[in-house]
Order: sequence, then structure tokens, then C-alpha cells
Amino acid sequence: MTDPATYVAQSAITTVNIGELHFETGGYLPKVELAYETWGRLNAEKSNAILIQHALTGDTHVASSQLSPEAGWWEYLVGPGKTIDTDKWFVIAVNMVGGCYGSTGPSSLDGDKNPYGSRFPFVTIRDSVNAEAKLADQLGIERFHTVIGGSMGGGRALEWAAMYPDRVAGVGVIACGGQATAEQIAFAQAQVEAIRLDPHFKAGDYYGGPTPIQGLGIARRIAHINYRSEPELNVRFGRQFQGDENPLNSPVATRTGRYQVESYLDYKAKDLAGRFDANSYIALTEALMSHDVGRGRGGQAAAIAKITATPFIVAVNSDRLYFPEQSYQLAADFGPHTPVHMIDSPIGHDGFLTDLHQVADDMITTLGL
Amino acid sequence: MTDPATYVAQSAITTVNIGELHFETGGYLPKVELAYETWGRLNAEKSNAILIQHALTGDTHVASSQLSPEAGWWEYLVGPGKTIDTDKWFVIAVNMVGGCYGSTGPSSLDGDKNPYGSRFPFVTIRDSVNAEAKLADQLGIERFHTVIGGSMGGGRALEWAAMYPDRVAGVGVIACGGQATAEQIAFAQAQVEAIRLDPHFKAGDYYGGPTPIQGLGIARRIAHINYRSEPELNVRFGRQFQGDENPLNSPVATRTGRYQVESYLDYKAKDLAGRFDANSYIALTEALMSHDVGRGRGGQAAAIAKITATPFIVAVNSDRLYFPEQSYQLAADFGPHTPVHMIDSPIGHDGFLTDLHQVADDMITTLGL
Repeated sequence: MTDPATYVAQSAITTVNIGELHFETGGYLPKVELAYETWGRLNAEKSNAILIQHALTGDTHVASSQLSPEAGWWEYLVGPGKTIDTDKWFVIAVNMVGGCYGSTGPSSLDGDKNPYGSRFPFVTIRDSVNAEAKLADQLGIERFHTVIGGSMGGGRALEWAAMYPDRVAGVGVIACGGQATAEQIAFAQAQVEAIRLDPHFKAGDYYGGPTPIQGLGIARRIAHINYRSEPELNVRFGRQFQGDENPLNSPVATRTGRYQVESYLDYKAKDLAGRFDANSYIALTEALMSHDVGRGRGGQAAAIAKITATPFIVAVNSDRLYFPEQSYQLAADFGPHTPVHMIDSPIGHDGFLTDLHQVADDMITTLGL
Repeated sequence: MTDPATYVAQSAITTVNIGELHFETGGYLPKVELAYETWGRLNAEKSNAILIQHALTGDTHVASSQLSPEAGWWEYLVGPGKTIDTDKWFVIAVNMVGGCYGSTGPSSLDGDKNPYGSRFPFVTIRDSVNAEAKLADQLGIERFHTVIGGSMGGGRALEWAAMYPDRVAGVGVIACGGQATAEQIAFAQAQVEAIRLDPHFKAGDYYGGPTPIQGLGIARRIAHINYRSEPELNVRFGRQFQGDENPLNSPVATRTGRYQVESYLDYKAKDLAGRFDANSYIALTEALMSHDVGRGRGGQAAAIAKITATPFIVAVNSDRLYFPEQSYQLAADFGPHTPVHMIDSPIGHDGFLTDLHQVADDMITTLGL
């Protein structure tokens, strides 16, 4: 058995109590738990830790491991001998506070064993970093070699570098900019309103009864369309009908026949509704909309100027949720010679999940992996 | 007083009974009325008629007139001495069947004085053209000099030229392609589902009770974001807070403070909910998704080959609802020398409303106005 001080966990989810948490916009929880998975071993100096941050509906399962063999969402990136080599690095992934994959969130029980529901605090990206810093303290990790993530995970990584410059040596911001844009806020609003419109939502206090899966499904549809590019949807689905269904054979407006793209989004909606809590979806969506590295810091350029971590910035050339322009702006704020590493993929934003291997060598070089 | 045969109406809305209508996907109505506005005078030969087709939530009020002096949605285009000169042309605009601006739609009463609601037929663009052809028959218009429209109005114009090649001499398709794309269908599905989720929708039979304005408002938000470009939203609104509101001062997720872009979309949602019937929104959205000029005609190229009307095709360079690529494809199907006239505007799809004057001279030349 390894010394507990240098050996944290051999994968599978661990949950720790980080104590109370004061949230940025006034909320307070007396006790917060964070769930995390790890890969590899923390060295004696605790200098080989890499924090990988998940996206909006992501979880801690970045990659497979002995105790959790199913493939993770960056399976090709993280593992023995891979880009982030777990023979060398101690990798940790934390479920964000407010989420529903093990960390304290709206579906968690308060001290009286009642789910928080509508009483759960408003969460910002900065709140999540504060919580994760407490976890890092507990693990004895003074400084991460790298904090990296894609989409909302990129925002979480960037805030780590901005809030704790002394604790982050390298920061990877993949398919994310320095702030949520007007368009992202606009689409997020429609999503949140759709969930709230669901009669089962009951202002957020639906636990114990039916859940607002229809509203959550609509939110997912809106989001997922923007995770993909227009050409990708058109090439894959076009106007094809789904199987034997015919969307043009109903005498009244409420048709049952679907187009293929509708069936595809029905699947995406159902899949998310089966695995994600609607309140967590709202909480993390709001957190993502709060993302603005320059807020209260004199703007983005001033905020970035105080970051000491080495930046590794990646965009997807077909991304229309986080347009590459945002990554270029972020890179420019890091300095005139900061490159944007471009993933060439027709599929859109989700290229950060499917095609990050394209810039794996750059990642190794830039971040010193 | 002018001879009724040559003088149809001096603006303001006229409603006529066009009799029964068999709908393409099996629906049937024993009596359909169409509402229309006109400008100018039909000449003795009835050869100077121009049909202008409105978009999804548009109406017949294309331009002001003596009896209806408020500005219309193509005010700068239509009137005495303007691009479509009503001293020369007899202009008519018809509210599409299924709509809620005077023509028979889901909110209309059946023979027993009950609103159709959920029983209203599924409407296609072709159904609307069929209905309008009956109106043209009544008015004695054998052939339109021009049928022109933007967005869904462009689809309606294109179908006119495809269904009645002998009755359309010139066709203007503005900011619309030959078919609804996978992406348009996907966003439409989310919109329709949002309306259906509204507890007030009651499967479409909500008349006499509260109306599903929340669901319709969500639909409008989704649609309107796509009517504008991402840069336009970002330049206008960015992350600005609305007035004294602060989206980041709520201790819980249900915040009351809004971002400016949210306030803007709240306004758009409320405005539409106050002026449009939700069932009509679904009916016309479904009609627009049915748009496919090549359906049942051996594909788009074969369908276009049978059109004899002179095409006038316009796109907006920043349109991300009807990408210019679709207009180029349409033009190519009309023949190798068919140009796409490009509106240069940063605002996106809505440029077809705000900036069509940029191609007014091309319109006059191409269509012989």
C-alpha cells in the first residue's frame, strides 16, 4: 500500500467534504462535497498534478481506468503513454459544484435531508474554482502543472489561472473564449426558459415527483444544434425522413412522422434527460453565462495580463458556439506571439471532444507534457 | 368610381371566400377565406399584377396607403415612384392560409362557430400557392408579372413559379433557398416543442382561455437569434446589463436581473405573443419546413428546369438562417449565368427587410420593373 500522502485514489469516483462555501453572488452552503476521479500517482513533491475540467454536461470520467473501464470523453488524450501520460502525471477531474455527477448540487440533500432545489445558490465559474482550490488544499497540491479544459471546462481552466496565478503553471483553454457572448446568453436564456416552462419543473422543487424532462430536452436540442455545424447537420441528415416515418402525411399540424434530424435530436434530448438533473443544467448554464475573465478586473486584457501560466489556446475552425475569433482575442491578450492552435473539423464545437488529437504535439510542446 | 373589374381595392384589408380547399397532406376545409391588401390599379389587360409574399410572421401590410397609412415592412420598396412603382403596377399581398392576419387559420371559426384549433389542416407552401391561385382566378389575374418575397415569402414565390409556370413571368426569391435545411428543421422542432410544452397550449385547443404566450415567446427567441448575426448581437449588446438590473446579484439560480440581450429578446417574445396566434405559428413553421421545391419533382434541379419565370435571386452575406450557399445553389439550378444579388449587411437574415434597397436597381433591370 502506498503512503496516503502521495497516493490519492486509483480512479473511480471519490467524494470529499471541502466544508462551507460562500458563493460569489451571496449564496452560502455550510457543507459542500466535491466528487473527483484521478489517474496516475501524485509524486512526493506533489508537482505532477494536472487538473482536467469538464464541459457543461460533462462528468469526471475523462478516461478509462482499472476501476472504471468504460471509455471517457478524452479517452485518446489521457492514459499511460498518451498525450497526457498517466505514467508521468497525476490527473484529476472534479465534478463542478452545482452539477449532478457526485458533487453538491441542487439535487443534493441539505442538513435536514431535503433536496436544495430552488434554494441552491447561484453558481459562477469563480465559485467552482474556489471550491476546487479547497479540494487542492486538502490533497496538498500547491500548484498544478496544468489546468486544462474544453468549452465550459476551458472557462473553468482560465479562471483558475486568473484567480490563482501562483497555483497554475500551464493553462489550456480549448474551444472557449474569455467571456460568454451575447449570443451564448441569448441561446442560454431560451434553454432555461424552456425548462422553467415545463409543468413538472415546479419552480425547481420537483424532486420526489416527475421531472421536467420535456423542458430539459428542448434545452438540449437548442444547445446541441450549436454544438454542431450547419453543414454537418445538412450532410448527415438533409431532409431525409426517419425510417418509415413521413412528416408529410398528417392531415393536421400535430404530425407523428419525423425528419431524421428531429429523430437525432429526440435521441439527444432523451439521453440527456435520462442522465442529467434539470436544476443542475440551469445552475451550470448560468455559471457559464457568468463567465467573464475580465469582470471586476478592469477588463479581459488586464485580467489576462496578471496570469502567469503558459497559455495553450485551441479553437475549432467550424465552431459557431465559441467562434475562433474569441480564441484569437484571448490569445492576443496573452501576448502578440501567443498562437491559436486550430482544430480542422467540419463538425463544429464538438470538435474539441472528437479531434483534439490534431493538436496533441503542440500541447506537449507548449505545456511541457 | 372605377369599373370593379379593373379596380379591386384601394388598400386596407379585403377578405374573399375562395371556396373549399383540399390540402396536400390530406386535410380539407369546406370554405377558405383569404385576406389581402392591394396598391395601385389593375390595368384593363390585367397584366400589371405583382404578388408580394410575406415571411413567417409577416402580414399583408407591405407598404402604407391612403386607407392604411402606417409604414409597411417593405415601405421603401413599394409605392408611387418607388422600385415597385404603384403608379405602374398593381401590387397585391395575401395573408397565407393558416395565418392569423385575416385569412382562414387555426383561430378561424368552422361552420359551427367553433375555432378549428387542433383540427386545422397541416399546411404546406404548395397549399398556400393553390389557395392563392384561386384568389388570382377570382381577380381575373391569369399571369403575374412578378411574384416576389423574402424568407418564407421567397419560398412561396418559388413555389408559385414551380406550380404555375404559365402564370409567373418573373420570380424574386430573397434570402431563401430551394428547400428547408436540416438545421432549419432542427430549430423549428425546438420552437414547436416549446409551444406545445406550454400548459396553456392544451394540444392546440386553447381558444377562449389563456393562450400559450410563454411557449410562443421561447419559439420567437430561438427564431429571432437566427434572424440576426452573431456579431450583430455582440456589438449591440455584448455582456451589458439591462439598465439598473444585475444578473449577478441573486443568491439563487432564479435571478431577476437580466443581460441586455435577454431584455431585447423578452421584448421580441412579448411583441410576437401579443400579435400572433400560436397555432398559426406552428402551422406556418411546419409549412416552411415542408418547403422543398424538388419534392416529388425529381429533385431541385429538375423542378427549377421547368420554371419559365425570370429569376431574381438575392442573399444577405451575413445570413446564417438561409446561408448564401443555398441561394448560389438555387441560382446554379436556374442556369450557369444566373447571378445571386448580394446584400451587404452585418445584421444577418433580417437584412432582407432592412437592406433590400441595395439591389433595387438590379431588381428593376432583372424583372423589368
